Amino acid sequence: MTVTMPSALSSARESIDSRLRHTVAGLDPDTRRVSEYHFGWIDAEGAEDNRPGKALRPALVLLSARAANGDERSACSGAVAVELVHNFSLLHDDLMDGDISRRHRPTAWTVFGRSAALLAGDALLGLANGVLLEADSQRALWAARELSGTVRELIAGQAADLDFEQRTEVGFDECLRMVAGKTAALIACSCSLGALLSGASEHTVRRLRGFGFELGMAFQLVDDLLGIWGDPEETGKPVLSDLRSRKKSMPVVHALNSDTDAGMRLRELYRQPEEPTEAQVLRGAELLRSAGSEEWTRAETERRLTAAHRQLRDAGCQGTTEELTELADFVLRRNQ
Amino acid sequence: MTVTMPSALSSARESIDSRLRHTVAGLDPDTRRVSEYHFGWIDAEGAEDNRPGKALRPALVLLSARAANGDERSACSGAVAVELVHNFSLLHDDLMDGDISRRHRPTAWTVFGRSAALLAGDALLGLANGVLLEADSQRALWAARELSGTVRELIAGQAADLDFEQRTEVGFDECLRMVAGKTAALIACSCSLGALLSGASEHTVRRLRGFGFELGMAFQLVDDLLGIWGDPEETGKPVLSDLRSRKKSMPVVHALNSDTDAGMRLRELYRQPEEPTEAQVLRGAELLRSAGSEEWTRAETERRLTAAHRQLRDAGCQGTTEELTELADFVLRRNQ
Repeated sequence: MTVTMPSALSSARESIDSRLRHTVAGLDPDTRRVSEYHFGWIDAEGAEDNRPGKALRPALVLLSARAANGDERSACSGAVAVELVHNFSLLHDDLMDGDISRRHRPTAWTVFGRSAALLAGDALLGLANGVLLEADSQRALWAARELSGTVRELIAGQAADLDFEQRTEVGFDECLRMVAGKTAALIACSCSLGALLSGASEHTVRRLRGFGFELGMAFQLVDDLLGIWGDPEETGKPVLSDLRSRKKSMPVVHALNSDTDAGMRLRELYRQPEEPTEAQVLRGAELLRSAGSEEWTRAETERRLTAAHRQLRDAGCQGTTEELTELADFVLRRNQ
Repeated sequence: MTVTMPSALSSARESIDSRLRHTVAGLDPDTRRVSEYHFGWIDAEGAEDNRPGKALRPALVLLSARAANGDERSACSGAVAVELVHNFSLLHDDLMDGDISRRHRPTAWTVFGRSAALLAGDALLGLANGVLLEADSQRALWAARELSGTVRELIAGQAADLDFEQRTEVGFDECLRMVAGKTAALIACSCSLGALLSGASEHTVRRLRGFGFELGMAFQLVDDLLGIWGDPEETGKPVLSDLRSRKKSMPVVHALNSDTDAGMRLRELYRQPEEPTEAQVLRGAELLRSAGSEEWTRAETERRLTAAHRQLRDAGCQGTTEELTELADFVLRRNQ
């Protein structure tokens, strides 16, 4: 199945591009350079480059605004703000996780040093609030409050993820909560900000947030599948990469808590002191299948997508919701 | 001369204590523990402790509110917010600078690890915005906008400070700008937020910000003197500590740019590849004196204090400004 990228993604990127660049240009020269590199606008030497991210979250803000009330212009500050927060979290997560590659380029901290990347992350978080508050309106204030709560959830999710790395036992529910914070919260916030800033009713804002939340959970499930069975050419990571690093992603935690023979054996693999061999990594993938965890993950993705559609249907939107549906489907089909 | 600590400091600490603790308690358990340790409320094992910071910035918020309009209650959210931002910057600066001790205790990153301290800093920055936006008012929005601009200045100051470490030449003006960002901006913001949240006029807000700015510059000058000639018992650092680490503080940058014989010799000491010997460190302190830089720093502190008083006098305050004056004098006399 060939999947065409929805035009909403490129169009969101264009809509926010000048404001995002202008906002980042307000930083001091050092922090600006690191940020512009991270955004893919310049290369490590400072020469112009053009490798922007997907802009999924800005697209969700703008399409949610269009769905809620037909007009996306009022929500542009929200689209810029969520992209800033997303990139703040990427800069800091790469630092904490020691990741050396992102979007097929060396991560910012490997190029500019740990301190510079840390400061650039701080700066993007600081800018996100400033952008939302440029408008002198009650709704801008509500939006900033919503974003502040979301940042707290993001941090809670990342703290839980770091904690899981140190532990041998991770419960299924706490794993769900971790994903809810680390991934779903900002995607939910993107949808609610779009609705909020375009003047939607409280009911519509809540439903669109719910749509984003279910979509965000599904998005992470797909990501987890790709981290195990994804095509290295697409993901930029070697095959079975998450099993090799013994990451406690949702399919794995599902298996570990599955009370099956395969789950017990996977547990032994995750607990052994030495690094797993290639044969063991392959065996791990087999165990995940035997425990029913691959199947569960695919089914759960579908359940979340259905739940997302239901939230959208019940949102009482006055504008078009077609593009939101299309974007959700695209995001969740990228592994097929 | 014996200096008594103004009651405004302990009283500010009491005024914000419950709200600050309540705000931090809203974090996830891991991040909360790191933050509470950093604030001095618990020890490394989680047992109750009581080693709070000075609360200078909250005191400036509350006294500025009282000066502007006689009522400090309206400014409590601002006092909590600046304390959160101050501690965000301490957590991240300790990490970047590799400092292992703060307020006579091991720094948070040495106790909980780099990632946990990084996340705790992120969390406090995120909370600061949330606290200001709890009130549904136009002034809360202005205050959050002011804080966002201040965070950008803080980061610019820290970025410049890190950059100076890598360089042999640091100009006098760029050193002033670094201090303006790293230290004076948040102290200025504390005073302006107090005035703003208590409903003061734009003129009063601007003058009180100016008062805080001059006070902040003077505060750093005193700190720089203490880093060189301060009593180790008071500062918690060995004597001549900033010279030993060849920190480019204002007195040093003044000497390096002084076009004197002593300045030239200090430059050689700062450039030599090997660590300075104790004899060289002592000689460095002499060179600073010969270059006139100790005298300049003391005189500049007085000029800044006079400028601060002038701003306060011209602010058109309707409430009492006595306590603000008293606090400023206390802060700047702590080295005598």
